[in-house]
Amino acid sequence: MTEDAAVRRSRITPERVAEIYAAVLDLLREVGYDALTMDAVAARTRSSKATLYRQWGGKAELVVRAMRCQKPGSTGDVDTGSLQGDLHGLIGREGDYVMEQNAALMRALAMAVHTNDDLRRAFRDLLVEPEIDEFRGIVRRAVERGEVHPDNPALDYMVHMLVGAFATRTLIDEQPPTRDFLISYIDAVVLPALGVSPR
Amino acid sequence: MTEDAAVRRSRITPERVAEIYAAVLDLLREVGYDALTMDAVAARTRSSKATLYRQWGGKAELVVRAMRCQKPGSTGDVDTGSLQGDLHGLIGREGDYVMEQNAALMRALAMAVHTNDDLRRAFRDLLVEPEIDEFRGIVRRAVERGEVHPDNPALDYMVHMLVGAFATRTLIDEQPPTRDFLISYIDAVVLPALGVSPR
Repeated sequence: MTEDAAVRRSRITPERVAEIYAAVLDLLREVGYDALTMDAVAARTRSSKATLYRQWGGKAELVVRAMRCQKPGSTGDVDTGSLQGDLHGLIGREGDYVMEQNAALMRALAMAVHTNDDLRRAFRDLLVEPEIDEFRGIVRRAVERGEVHPDNPALDYMVHMLVGAFATRTLIDEQPPTRDFLISYIDAVVLPALGVSPR
Repeated sequence: MTEDAAVRRSRITPERVAEIYAAVLDLLREVGYDALTMDAVAARTRSSKATLYRQWGGKAELVVRAMRCQKPGSTGDVDTGSLQGDLHGLIGREGDYVMEQNAALMRALAMAVHTNDDLRRAFRDLLVEPEIDEFRGIVRRAVERGEVHPDNPALDYMVHMLVGAFATRTLIDEQPPTRDFLISYIDAVVLPALGVSPR
């Protein structure tokens, strides 16, 4: 079901959909996936539960669609001519506040995506795979330019390196991930592992 | 309160304490921290709730003590003469089953440690800090041997690199972290980032 179909079916406005998605993400960060109820979403958005179920079918679909909606656009257009520039550009799209909010969402979902098959599948198809594809594009161009050797073994771990630093920052340092932290991590870890000297 | 004090106070045997800790960790992996109740621990271990509260005070202390108890011993004695050897040795202490179980524990706690101050403090003091200290020892020896330049910026990110790969493996690849995966990640990412060529 596309958002358009949802809008058409109930004459719900796109603004209203955006409002509901924002409330879902707020609740998710506050209480986590398991404790998030359709009742709470209905109460906070002054909707009826019947409307929510009619529009989204259930909690897993509502949550994943809300997350996909707040994701920034594709990086297809980040093409600066160097791997360092592309990776910095990727980070630069998002403000520190958005990154902290995303880190909170990851924590809220960490357990649920492993115990709920529907949620995991939706999460993977709608969020993880597109992310991996974006990295593939950036890395492919770096290999084509001759910046990175095509057999460099760190190429297999691009996502682990970056998502790992993002996900562990708060736990290890009791500070949220920020743009400065990720830029510094890219220059200290990701580029040297790929055999590229940061400028 | 040390485990000894707990044992003395109620004549509970160390075997019984180990049994209760194992049940707590099982429940934690199954339902997560928020949904874990002292009732469930009491039921599964055929203890009374009064006993559990008397021994451990509350849920946060019981959970963190259970986690600390199952942690393998210090790596103080892993000293192979090379950074690669030490890092591989660190991984080699744990079997794949234990690593998968630990990844499940991390997921179960990811949200709770951020929303519960007591739990976060206990988690940090009893689990994160000792882990960081172990890495510091390994890295210090590598710097003293001249393997790693003392100003290498990746030195600040040892824990992010390793814990990050461990934590994101299941999400990204839908496979649990294994010894082979972590060894390969160390050789592909961690050592090259530190300017060390894996053998």
